Amino acid sequence: MKNTFGQSCSLTIFGESHGPAIGAVLDGLAPGVTVDEGFISAQLSKRRPAGKISTARIEEDKFEIVSGVYNGKTTGTPITVVIPNTNVKSSDYSEFSHIARPGHADYTAHLKYHGFEDYRGGGHFSGRITAAVVAAGAIAASALKEKGITIGTHIKACAGIYDREISDIPADIETVNALNFAVLDSEIAEAMKQAIEDAAKDGDSVGGILETGVSGFPAGVGEPFFDGVESVLAHALFSIPAIKGVQFGAGFGLCGMRGSEANDSFEISDGRVVTGTNRSGGINGGITNGMPLVFSCAVKPTSSIYKPQRTVDFVSMENTELRLSGRHDPAIFHRARVVVDSLTAIVLCDMLAQRFGTDYLMPDKK
Amino acid sequence: MKNTFGQSCSLTIFGESHGPAIGAVLDGLAPGVTVDEGFISAQLSKRRPAGKISTARIEEDKFEIVSGVYNGKTTGTPITVVIPNTNVKSSDYSEFSHIARPGHADYTAHLKYHGFEDYRGGGHFSGRITAAVVAAGAIAASALKEKGITIGTHIKACAGIYDREISDIPADIETVNALNFAVLDSEIAEAMKQAIEDAAKDGDSVGGILETGVSGFPAGVGEPFFDGVESVLAHALFSIPAIKGVQFGAGFGLCGMRGSEANDSFEISDGRVVTGTNRSGGINGGITNGMPLVFSCAVKPTSSIYKPQRTVDFVSMENTELRLSGRHDPAIFHRARVVVDSLTAIVLCDMLAQRFGTDYLMPDKK
Amino acid sequence: MKNTFGQSCSLTIFGESHGPAIGAVLDGLAPGVTVDEGFISAQLSKRRPAGKISTARIEEDKFEIVSGVYNGKTTGTPITVVIPNTNVKSSDYSEFSHIARPGHADYTAHLKYHGFEDYRGGGHFSGRITAAVVAAGAIAASALKEKGITIGTHIKACAGIYDREISDIPADIETVNALNFAVLDSEIAEAMKQAIEDAAKDGDSVGGILETGVSGFPAGVGEPFFDGVESVLAHALFSIPAIKGVQFGAGFGLCGMRGSEANDSFEISDGRVVTGTNRSGGINGGITNGMPLVFSCAVKPTSSIYKPQRTVDFVSMENTELRLSGRHDPAIFHRARVVVDSLTAIVLCDMLAQRFGTDYLMPDKK
Amino acid sequence: MKNTFGQSCSLTIFGESHGPAIGAVLDGLAPGVTVDEGFISAQLSKRRPAGKISTARIEEDKFEIVSGVYNGKTTGTPITVVIPNTNVKSSDYSEFSHIARPGHADYTAHLKYHGFEDYRGGGHFSGRITAAVVAAGAIAASALKEKGITIGTHIKACAGIYDREISDIPADIETVNALNFAVLDSEIAEAMKQAIEDAAKDGDSVGGILETGVSGFPAGVGEPFFDGVESVLAHALFSIPAIKGVQFGAGFGLCGMRGSEANDSFEISDGRVVTGTNRSGGINGGITNGMPLVFSCAVKPTSSIYKPQRTVDFVSMENTELRLSGRHDPAIFHRARVVVDSLTAIVLCDMLAQRFGTDYLMPDKK
Repeated sequence: MKNTFGQSCSLTIFGESHGPAIGAVLDGLAPGVTVDEGFISAQLSKRRPAGKISTARIEEDKFEIVSGVYNGKTTGTPITVVIPNTNVKSSDYSEFSHIARPGHADYTAHLKYHGFEDYRGGGHFSGRITAAVVAAGAIAASALKEKGITIGTHIKACAGIYDREISDIPADIETVNALNFAVLDSEIAEAMKQAIEDAAKDGDSVGGILETGVSGFPAGVGEPFFDGVESVLAHALFSIPAIKGVQFGAGFGLCGMRGSEANDSFEISDGRVVTGTNRSGGINGGITNGMPLVFSCAVKPTSSIYKPQRTVDFVSMENTELRLSGRHDPAIFHRARVVVDSLTAIVLCDMLAQRFGTDYLMPDKK
Repeated sequence: MKNTFGQSCSLTIFGESHGPAIGAVLDGLAPGVTVDEGFISAQLSKRRPAGKISTARIEEDKFEIVSGVYNGKTTGTPITVVIPNTNVKSSDYSEFSHIARPGHADYTAHLKYHGFEDYRGGGHFSGRITAAVVAAGAIAASALKEKGITIGTHIKACAGIYDREISDIPADIETVNALNFAVLDSEIAEAMKQAIEDAAKDGDSVGGILETGVSGFPAGVGEPFFDGVESVLAHALFSIPAIKGVQFGAGFGLCGMRGSEANDSFEISDGRVVTGTNRSGGINGGITNGMPLVFSCAVKPTSSIYKPQRTVDFVSMENTELRLSGRHDPAIFHRARVVVDSLTAIVLCDMLAQRFGTDYLMPDKK
Repeated sequence: MKNTFGQSCSLTIFGESHGPAIGAVLDGLAPGVTVDEGFISAQLSKRRPAGKISTARIEEDKFEIVSGVYNGKTTGTPITVVIPNTNVKSSDYSEFSHIARPGHADYTAHLKYHGFEDYRGGGHFSGRITAAVVAAGAIAASALKEKGITIGTHIKACAGIYDREISDIPADIETVNALNFAVLDSEIAEAMKQAIEDAAKDGDSVGGILETGVSGFPAGVGEPFFDGVESVLAHALFSIPAIKGVQFGAGFGLCGMRGSEANDSFEISDGRVVTGTNRSGGINGGITNGMPLVFSCAVKPTSSIYKPQRTVDFVSMENTELRLSGRHDPAIFHRARVVVDSLTAIVLCDMLAQRFGTDYLMPDKK
Repeated sequence: MKNTFGQSCSLTIFGESHGPAIGAVLDGLAPGVTVDEGFISAQLSKRRPAGKISTARIEEDKFEIVSGVYNGKTTGTPITVVIPNTNVKSSDYSEFSHIARPGHADYTAHLKYHGFEDYRGGGHFSGRITAAVVAAGAIAASALKEKGITIGTHIKACAGIYDREISDIPADIETVNALNFAVLDSEIAEAMKQAIEDAAKDGDSVGGILETGVSGFPAGVGEPFFDGVESVLAHALFSIPAIKGVQFGAGFGLCGMRGSEANDSFEISDGRVVTGTNRSGGINGGITNGMPLVFSCAVKPTSSIYKPQRTVDFVSMENTELRLSGRHDPAIFHRARVVVDSLTAIVLCDMLAQRFGTDYLMPDKK
């Protein structure tokens, strides 16, 4: 479905960048999960821009939970989070209603919605919508955490600069989750920030690669063929605006390896089956093998740049030049990391519920 | 669902490597599409191993269409293709029923199916099942071709050797579709084959990157957020055994670019909107923009290698060493290319039917 | 999915009777449909109780559209309607949190949600939630009306009293849609009201049968087998609280007929195929035949009655007696009729979009 | 989806009446379920016509299981049953390719498939397809039986003649499952058979009402609103050709009751919650309450009758008269009962897997 994803635990999102509100409906999460509004706020703040490397538009992201929570715990019925849009300056955008901003969905939205789309600020295609995903995902992450499952994402690469590998799982997950700019090596973090600022000075932007680790996820989860873990996670991840690549484990790097290097050997350790390496990212044949899940996402550079760009007026069908003003991030990948975590949390809750039943994530379930 | 994918046009697959038959049900394809059994056979032959670089197990892939075709044309109701398994030597595998072959799904299937799985030759997790996908995909590809939509995949990279870019679309598509070993540059093709043979001599295997182009696909197709074209295609592609990475357009390469380079400028050409570059792979905001679709898949090296590997007996929970005999390809990516094409064809038929209705692919529809 | 229904045009509902708000997300409706807030209010007022035959709890049903509408028209992206809960007296219910009200979902909700459910006023299982369906359905009905498709429901029977058949379609549809108490024969309407009041005096309640007609719906819509029109409509209709039976055309009455009477003869009339009778309710083999759709729903008597009832405390596991006070309708079927119309409108929009594409319901589409 | 139903445990059907084969893919059933081919045959024989009250076309229904079963037990991966069509006389039908048989889907199939449909014997719309449902359902029923869940259907009414109520559950279920003509009262059975023969003598047909009971199904299963047990079961049941009405518990009869009669009182019995009556059919708010499930289906009279009927040639658009010859049952409801049981078994397996996880129906699972 268009704006709904998931089988047993599903997410529905709604809203436009400059409409009254955005929001999300998280349906099917187990009952009894404690809803920590402080944690939701903290997660939202990771997505929110801040400082020199982000847009000056500061959204407050005051959210309201209007259903599905009673006495501070999930009821099992749909949880709805509504986030009113504030600090909206539509006049920033109105002149561009017929101009295709390169890299954005203006033109394709027009083809699909025939001019009825709310084009202001990208409308429904705005990254703004992902705030709702983050709010819902925070609740899902809380449910997972009570079962010992944690998720964290670091900035693996940006502008040719690479962080060290995420490897010491779950410690690295805990580390990145405490960071606002999620780079494991603090010197590299500064170099990346500098690269972002450099691009900003040129009226330009940069992209990056996010790497995510999941600790404590049970083995034997996932379906053969079409609903393998890679398939379902990739489906969700590619829905995040700006993500143009997804790989599991060594991913594209496997193509330069031989089988003897790419295969993860199995061994018995402390009475359980583990692998020597984790090139597969914890997934064999679409099913989890009990090792940490590891995957990476390619996030393209922010499409909104100040440099003049050649483009078209798709109504008058004339060539034109675009010079953006307003507030635009020189990078978004550092903000996208919490969207990746959030959507991953929801997808994993869904998979667990499908595999082990709808009560599985109840905190006190034996 | 587990073995069914698609909304308006869906594919269901079934079968195990050493069971009586494998097959596929393609449901929802428009009525009136000519079913060319010769083309189905030709597509199956591209998946079939051949020569030094492939396993000596030659499957005949004699298929039977048992429903959904009448007078040589699709009826609109489910098309079922059954491919009996022949040339099966189960004794090759029976000794390994408790041994986790590294890179394979033996262990994870055991966790999920508790020992009831048909482990012979990988059972339902065998690449063998993809023959059914190819047979069904050939019919879908025929439907698309009648609308001027063509799909082709070349081997972009293998063992550090790169083919030239797929760029002259649709001509390159036609070229690769005529090749058995789908490399655009014939000298590079020889170098790649040599690399595969070298690995084979070492009892090892190699992986590769496949790049796919789609020509003639309409603009304005795809859904916002969860059912964007990237999401749905990636979902399907990751279901193909051995695929561990998917990217659209420049994909992971976008992370090393600035926005001014990553953004595709728009321009008017011959009265229609086109882009200068195609870094987005023909998709903005999940919706097609009328440019060729371009995406790449990372195919890991064949997991079955002759080199001894450390692994475990997951029933006795003891470490052991695995020495495979039997028939195993030193590479599978060159065979996987037609699986990618086939699944892509089915997914695109589904998207067109969802967008424009279930009659859209009828050949004589105006 | 649990609280989402539909493929191309889907509805997601949320909320509890005594929570902050209820609401609905209608996703996939074509762009460009005029949203008439006055009509939404009018439809909501049909669901709202009024007068002697309804509960004294008058909900204002002030709704807010927070997404998916721009400049008074649908954008094509998710339409979200939020209806805050007002006039809530939770103290009416709190004493019953462990007491299974006969006919209600208190006990079964407890089994499913393990005590975490919001039990107040039935929580998510309250008929209250259907107000959100009505608001969303009003927008869908507007889209259909622009294509000449109208839907109307009358009270076919109540307490052994029968209205005349709905037969003069679309005139009867227009007639019932103008009525607050939807009985075609005004004398019978008074008799039914009397029966409801009689039950109320006894502290009891009555049920009824609703019959719905749809005019102007195209032929050739619906899928074979699992997604036939009967299947999909029944799926939706049975989700309405209190509906315990659904039949199409002559339905259960067909069982007393012979084939020669049950079969609708075909004939050519004004150059198109029509049927002599309409025992099939406009559907053959799950596909519409161009005749009006006709179906009936059995609505059970209001479960909340004032008469003492034997029941249990499902926590202490003891027998007890229930004596309800508070505000309860002696009948709900007359209010349910607009819920039936609304859900039908949404389902039909979905079927049309699946069959003819997502633009089909755009008002100015040729 | 068109020919696929179910979430965790799904059924895909395929085939046409006069094509090479019909069949079904049952995906997601738990591993380890014993597959009893004798029981499958026995179930198929209940669907097969026999004697005076059925068509003289005797189909052998020799089935082959081509996937998903290994060593006599389900593997957990898709189970495919193929039933070749034999004893096909296409010449019986070819003259009618443009003639709409009243009550059949010939005309609506033509509208949907534009003349490409395989019209022979009703093609994909033939009741013949339900043989595949029965074969798959037999396996599902075996899985349920190992958990103490049994399903049975009797002929509640036919031609104004009523069987006694199904009430002594599970004993009545066992009784009807041993009968070929499923009427609890043997004298009434004879009267019904006579009524069928009387209709046959007149070249006519009769319909009937089937009532189904399910014993031993767990409480707390089903989803709120859209995936309540009534919704999902009705969706499946209405897909069976000829079913035009479905009701749960007292169903349409509830409309003549007052609330005090319609409500099932709760009480504690042997330490568990039971109800005094079972007017709700074991379902409150879409969720099972632990009482037997009870529902009824209206089956219309066989559409194929020998009496001349007025109809049209929908290609030449002329009125005509239809005189059927060939083999046609004067009633089908007695054969449909096993289709109802089979589809019910599959739906219940799906619901259990969704609620309690995919291993729930493994026989030896604790």
